[in-house]
Amino acid sequence: MRIDGTPFRSIWVDELDRWSVRIIDQTKLPWAVDLVRLTTMEEMAHAIKAMLVRGAPLIGASAAYGVALALRADASDASLANALAVLGGTRPTAINLRWALARMEKVLAPLPAAARVAAAYEEAAKICDEDVATNRAIGENGLPLIAERAKNGRRVNVLTHCNAGWIATVDWGTALAPIYMAHDSGIDVHVWVEETRPRNQGASLTAWELGKHGVPHTVIADNAGGHYMQHGEVDLVIVGTDRVTRSGDVCNKIGTYLKGLAARDNGVPFWVALPSSTIDWTISDGLSDIPIEERAATEVTTMTGRALDGSIATVRIVPTSSPAANPAFDVTPARLVTGLITERGLCDANEAALTAMFKDVA
Amino acid sequence: MRIDGTPFRSIWVDELDRWSVRIIDQTKLPWAVDLVRLTTMEEMAHAIKAMLVRGAPLIGASAAYGVALALRADASDASLANALAVLGGTRPTAINLRWALARMEKVLAPLPAAARVAAAYEEAAKICDEDVATNRAIGENGLPLIAERAKNGRRVNVLTHCNAGWIATVDWGTALAPIYMAHDSGIDVHVWVEETRPRNQGASLTAWELGKHGVPHTVIADNAGGHYMQHGEVDLVIVGTDRVTRSGDVCNKIGTYLKGLAARDNGVPFWVALPSSTIDWTISDGLSDIPIEERAATEVTTMTGRALDGSIATVRIVPTSSPAANPAFDVTPARLVTGLITERGLCDANEAALTAMFKDVA
Repeated sequence: MRIDGTPFRSIWVDELDRWSVRIIDQTKLPWAVDLVRLTTMEEMAHAIKAMLVRGAPLIGASAAYGVALALRADASDASLANALAVLGGTRPTAINLRWALARMEKVLAPLPAAARVAAAYEEAAKICDEDVATNRAIGENGLPLIAERAKNGRRVNVLTHCNAGWIATVDWGTALAPIYMAHDSGIDVHVWVEETRPRNQGASLTAWELGKHGVPHTVIADNAGGHYMQHGEVDLVIVGTDRVTRSGDVCNKIGTYLKGLAARDNGVPFWVALPSSTIDWTISDGLSDIPIEERAATEVTTMTGRALDGSIATVRIVPTSSPAANPAFDVTPARLVTGLITERGLCDANEAALTAMFKDVA
Repeated sequence: MRIDGTPFRSIWVDELDRWSVRIIDQTKLPWAVDLVRLTTMEEMAHAIKAMLVRGAPLIGASAAYGVALALRADASDASLANALAVLGGTRPTAINLRWALARMEKVLAPLPAAARVAAAYEEAAKICDEDVATNRAIGENGLPLIAERAKNGRRVNVLTHCNAGWIATVDWGTALAPIYMAHDSGIDVHVWVEETRPRNQGASLTAWELGKHGVPHTVIADNAGGHYMQHGEVDLVIVGTDRVTRSGDVCNKIGTYLKGLAARDNGVPFWVALPSSTIDWTISDGLSDIPIEERAATEVTTMTGRALDGSIATVRIVPTSSPAANPAFDVTPARLVTGLITERGLCDANEAALTAMFKDVA
């Protein structure tokens, strides 16, 4: 999508040297657009772990380029194995990370060392292009859910949590793809953007994205989403996901479950947008089978933003003597999910529907 | 309760001049304990509006002293009427504000001007002492809910939202009163403290209170409360309230409704602690009949805390081009409420139970 008129992807091979990898440092958004150049696998692993790149699809694409960087330095079996291990250990929850690394291993392991570097860059580029095509299809499939509520020029209010926009993917986004398409097709769509504590991806990333593209939106505290549903001010919820089980349980950013409950209580459709690579066919019960990443307490006890003088500052918001806990994801049971928006079409959130739609991979 | 070993109330008449009113500036907590001296009704109105004092019971007590300050300056009928109007307009949602002002008016209006000042101070002091006795009774009535889960020294995990502690009242608190009593009686009680965006009363006030008193607690994002309930790590929820309808609908800080939903979904008892002055017998349907205060968007777009250098700083956390909305309360329907903890005992959240327990006032 566009930043101040210029089309961007969220990850690309540097135009000049044609081997280093460029990303947008998302920890600096919305205050600065810093196009970081990564030259080693270790730099990429750090970028994933420290969330310079985040969002399940982008994490997968980043890990793929991380393998390419590793092989460029050393194309041996040991180097490949080390890259897969290091990159695989950066984030525990996102299934796309493992999916992308397994795909890279399958392509690269059989090759002679001399052929691996070119093949790795080629495969990483394919992963990126496929992600863009997938997200475009998600947008097309989700668009009617918004369009059908826009009769007679009526404004459609969509609530979203966290950031499943174009910068969480290579382009288009998942949850935001139908919204971008609706907006671009002239539908009056307005987005309730939940700030998404503790890391504030909604306030800092989704609001930024939507604003740069011109989509009307309003930032709210995560606490306010249920209130707006009670008062008929949310027509539908669309969120992304980091992992969906074969039974349709949805693991997504902490707090998503609460919005699933509120949506059901108020008869608001609750849709989850995802590429099918996000489905983990090996597990069924999301609550017991998905490990939930516990992140640093400082994400809860501090907040970073722009001070009055324009500098980026971090303030502590919890007494220094108080401990904090920080589970990064929760699981919304399939029973709360109206349906899934996938690249192949809309799908009920249950095993029968999922395995029918994806019988070639399930 | 105590601050660093010294017993405090949250509002009191200055010990030296015996007419000005002292409060703890709660906008400065947890970083500084600033005992502000108020000398005029206008200063008190500002203190309520700007939330130097907050919490329904404390707002009522503060408004009462505001009337006393107004009459000390001018004890005429016009001055009394003006004080009631100005103080009554400071916060739209809290029923205690109107309750306290009506009580002051009833006592003071019939008196000759010369007798009003002494009577006003006396009545305000009575409101304070009664609040302390009421909250002590709430604590005693709620204590068994915690004690019955503490068999064999087992730790009891209580989740609370916002601040309904001693600094939200004159002393003891409402939701925290049973917790303080459980802790003081040797029960191993641990509190999940939700930060309570956008004003962070949980992280800045509840955590501070509990820490000063030595109660084990952990600060979490509001988004995390449902996750801990799903995993059996919350034994019960206790929250306060700003207004309860005669049918038992509970208006409380924005986000409370979401925890009511999560508690029901996971079979976790959801209790609401309140003095009966918080019950609004004139309304029944909380969703349609309670006006919800819309506060400044800057509460959502900025965050204030302590910078690395020790100074108090405000940072902006939302792009400057993005608007924000800030409803301050929501309504948890009675159907989600396990019961009410009142100064007269535990009560089901419905009209029959409430009018039976409070037949003298209902």
